[in-house]
Amino acid sequence: MSRRTEADTPRQPSQIAILRYLRIHGPAARIDIGTATGLSPATVTSLTADLMAQGLVHESQGTATGTGSNGNGGSTRGRPKVLLDLVPTAACVIGVKITINLIEIALGNFKGEIECSSEHSINTRDLDEKELIATLIRLIDGFIEEHKDFSARPPAGISIAVQGVCDSNSGEIIWSPALRRRNIALTKALGERFGGIVQMSNDANCIATAISQNTNLHRGGDFAVIMLGYGIGMGLVLNGSVYNGDFGTAAEFGHTKYQPDGPLCNCGKRGCLEAYIGDYAILRDARGLIDLPDTNSLHPSEEQMMDLVARARAGDEDLADLFRHAGKVLGYGIANLIALLGPKQIFITGSGARAYDMMEPELMQGLAQAQVPELRRGPEITHLAWDKDLALQGAIGQSLLRHDENMFQAITTI
Amino acid sequence: MSRRTEADTPRQPSQIAILRYLRIHGPAARIDIGTATGLSPATVTSLTADLMAQGLVHESQGTATGTGSNGNGGSTRGRPKVLLDLVPTAACVIGVKITINLIEIALGNFKGEIECSSEHSINTRDLDEKELIATLIRLIDGFIEEHKDFSARPPAGISIAVQGVCDSNSGEIIWSPALRRRNIALTKALGERFGGIVQMSNDANCIATAISQNTNLHRGGDFAVIMLGYGIGMGLVLNGSVYNGDFGTAAEFGHTKYQPDGPLCNCGKRGCLEAYIGDYAILRDARGLIDLPDTNSLHPSEEQMMDLVARARAGDEDLADLFRHAGKVLGYGIANLIALLGPKQIFITGSGARAYDMMEPELMQGLAQAQVPELRRGPEITHLAWDKDLALQGAIGQSLLRHDENMFQAITTI
Repeated sequence: MSRRTEADTPRQPSQIAILRYLRIHGPAARIDIGTATGLSPATVTSLTADLMAQGLVHESQGTATGTGSNGNGGSTRGRPKVLLDLVPTAACVIGVKITINLIEIALGNFKGEIECSSEHSINTRDLDEKELIATLIRLIDGFIEEHKDFSARPPAGISIAVQGVCDSNSGEIIWSPALRRRNIALTKALGERFGGIVQMSNDANCIATAISQNTNLHRGGDFAVIMLGYGIGMGLVLNGSVYNGDFGTAAEFGHTKYQPDGPLCNCGKRGCLEAYIGDYAILRDARGLIDLPDTNSLHPSEEQMMDLVARARAGDEDLADLFRHAGKVLGYGIANLIALLGPKQIFITGSGARAYDMMEPELMQGLAQAQVPELRRGPEITHLAWDKDLALQGAIGQSLLRHDENMFQAITTI
Repeated sequence: MSRRTEADTPRQPSQIAILRYLRIHGPAARIDIGTATGLSPATVTSLTADLMAQGLVHESQGTATGTGSNGNGGSTRGRPKVLLDLVPTAACVIGVKITINLIEIALGNFKGEIECSSEHSINTRDLDEKELIATLIRLIDGFIEEHKDFSARPPAGISIAVQGVCDSNSGEIIWSPALRRRNIALTKALGERFGGIVQMSNDANCIATAISQNTNLHRGGDFAVIMLGYGIGMGLVLNGSVYNGDFGTAAEFGHTKYQPDGPLCNCGKRGCLEAYIGDYAILRDARGLIDLPDTNSLHPSEEQMMDLVARARAGDEDLADLFRHAGKVLGYGIANLIALLGPKQIFITGSGARAYDMMEPELMQGLAQAQVPELRRGPEITHLAWDKDLALQGAIGQSLLRHDENMFQAITTI
């Protein structure tokens, strides 16, 4: 077990807190860093000097006048404050995203910006554990080689976003629509090959991380992000951190129930929210209503789903009812989420939010039917336009958070 | 906003951590405190000397030999370690418990032990906000006067456990079976009258606090305690603290749904778990099966419920089915809880657990029906025999935790 020296104890979390503040808020003056972290001006000056000496932080070109509440100027007017910012090249990390038949790789700089990325069409569902690992190693090796000019140092970490259910603690993919096999141990093999920190999380957790680092979206407090798509995922941020639970598999919102003995879910059980709202469920039900070409219904394409949405919008009331009912089921699911956790914000995103406008009225009605007003106070439910890069962005963000912690643990551990 | 001096920053949380360790683990040697808190031996010696000088901690009479894993003795054998313990009289707090027609008051010492208590039969449901507050003030005044010999100082805090739904943030009772009126603001008025910290929480949260401070029950990690009784409550401990959510009303497990459009719940909505499992729901359904005296069915007495249990045990299969079905519904509810949060332990207690043996097989079957094994890994589900003092115990525990924090915030705030 590591033991810390007394003198280092207070510095370590403070340095991590400063980096974290700059990650979330962008370039900031020393005085604002002090206000936000509760550190004294002298301590901020001393700690940021350390961080500058280590090449992690620099004074940025941009300057700003005071950001205080004194809107009409006052004493700070005309006195530009020097802003501190993270040094983009201080480190880099690799983000990987695994979805059905697509593997994406991106290089994130120390500020968390994506420097470059590549997409690889691969029949992921045909890969077993060994082949998946070999494929990832080949792709990451090629990617690092191609972008080796970015940083003198090798990537400090690899963070993998996987569509499906993951155990973030053990680094295992429990099941994923991208893979035919279940229970694939991934991070250990990549860690042995590449060194550094290799971590894995489901894509919804990665998106939650990206949102938690975006002050335009997230206004403090606990929040959940619900991802509609092939399946229904959720990322949960409690007390500032992504919540995985003691067994690494928490936030499986899609497998909470709407109705016992309801329709069959891909997980093998009945009545899960996903079995009503997931793309595969809507396409399955649509087949009972209209004639559709007999293509691979287990994994509907975006084109197939957009076709259903277009028909519903064009006046097919039976199809429109499917989307409305999905909205109602989602409302009931959100009522349960609110009863148990009462988060401050709930974001709804994912490719499945393509039909959110058709779902929303029933969603709100379902929520009102399911829960008394006293228990659904507050949470703001926001539709977040689907940005498929958000998962990669969040994977990179998770990697950098871990990197920050490890850097300073290393310094203070004897 | 308060600002802390640099020198105090690291001491404050460390002192609170030492008190917290002694609260949970009881008398402990300095070396064990150091191991548990990560503080160096020199720091533990210095901080505990401070705590002793303040009269909060003393060296206890009891001594013990090493508690290490070296079972057959070894170097610590025969060298008794001096144990440190909390000074019982260092402070006292008041715990209050409000249930249907019963108000209980207890005095807790600084170690969290109940020194004395009193019970008052009062028609709580006839009280409005003003009358409830006046009643509590009268009872607490009398109680303090009666027990003024215990401590030279007035009680440092008052903590109220309420059956029902509470907003712990605002100190408001949202609704309670003990009260006919809703939305009663309680803590503010009592705070103005008695000073100190007045806080309120539902009884399940208080029981969760009591369990979190009992190492015989709680083995680390996140846990939930489900309270069966008139209604269905839950206390949730995440990352070591009771979780109330951003709006103060989280953990309302009883108002998550089993089935949309199910039976009417006391909250006014349909299909809540409580509408199948709560005492009132079981008695309501029993009335449809057998002839029962026409007593106040809205608030079944313990005798009425025990009568139903006895008839079910004696061979009334229809009645037994009610309890079995309640078990199944509870299993489905727990499946949702596990999907969202995956806690390490789940405790089931409350007066309604009187029929747990009849509910358990269906509960386990319901859980297995609802959730695939990959998503219900781990949580240990434990029936905890109902101890009605646990809520008062937890209320006192919550008050002392807050008192510890406030003492050291006060010292380090300029």
